[in-house]
Amino acid sequence: MNLQDYIRTINDFPKPGVVFKDITPLLNSPEATTACLNQLLAMLGDQKIDKVVGIESRGFFFATLMAQKLNAGFVPIRKPGKLPHTTIKRSYALEYGDDHIEMHIDALEKGDRVLLHDDVLATGGTAKAACELIEHLGGHIVQCNFLMELEFLNGRNKIANYDVQSVLKF
Amino acid sequence: MNLQDYIRTINDFPKPGVVFKDITPLLNSPEATTACLNQLLAMLGDQKIDKVVGIESRGFFFATLMAQKLNAGFVPIRKPGKLPHTTIKRSYALEYGDDHIEMHIDALEKGDRVLLHDDVLATGGTAKAACELIEHLGGHIVQCNFLMELEFLNGRNKIANYDVQSVLKF
Repeated sequence: MNLQDYIRTINDFPKPGVVFKDITPLLNSPEATTACLNQLLAMLGDQKIDKVVGIESRGFFFATLMAQKLNAGFVPIRKPGKLPHTTIKRSYALEYGDDHIEMHIDALEKGDRVLLHDDVLATGGTAKAACELIEHLGGHIVQCNFLMELEFLNGRNKIANYDVQSVLKF
Repeated sequence: MNLQDYIRTINDFPKPGVVFKDITPLLNSPEATTACLNQLLAMLGDQKIDKVVGIESRGFFFATLMAQKLNAGFVPIRKPGKLPHTTIKRSYALEYGDDHIEMHIDALEKGDRVLLHDDVLATGGTAKAACELIEHLGGHIVQCNFLMELEFLNGRNKIANYDVQSVLKF
């Protein structure tokens, strides 16, 4: 099975000039989803994980699945104003201006071994902010893994201190 | 295990007067997540499911997990402007005005047996709109299930034609 066959390319979404990688065909196929999940878990190996952190919202799919397989807790990192309890925040740069992401202040216990997941590693700005949130709460980042990596954007340079893995490279 | 112990009540979120049920403590516990997943699957029984449809974004967690367990495809219903391919849309009433949800036009095959999932059944407006989208694409709704049902809002009346199940009632 070639997992790239399940990624649909959409030009000019969400805005002109952006080439969007749509993972809904992959999620629509139980066989492709299982194959992808197995590859993500294989990249982690037998390292113990306490919490899988997924970034809103396309990072939620495989983060939830990995947490279940690893018998780990799942923790969402969300966009502003979505988490109801007390949060910590980190901002990250956008093309114009900046935005921020949030995590519940009690989402991790000090020393938790954490797997961070998102669907795409692009510029790495969101992933770096997510790593800062996790470490601020005392989490130890074991690996950052992604379904897809847009290599021409060099996002892994921003999180070079960590083990960075991706299933598909574009 | 009492699953209600893993639901945190937050008053006045996202706005004054609303009592919000926060499921992040449940997701943070692998034992509670597994127990909840097993209860959701037990409510479905041994009915065959082709696609599990989850509503953005808290519906994504258990919809993804159920799809994996049922060897079914996962389909997201999203808020406006989030799905990159051609979509169909349905509007639903809010307290003031209305909003709409979208689904990819190729997300289902005609005759697909569908399980619809969201975290909360409140007024039922979103669930009803989701059912309309599913049926517009030719899906057969086998069950609508929810983690939580706010019974005082009588949401199940809006989707009374379907098998409606919920794990926790408030």
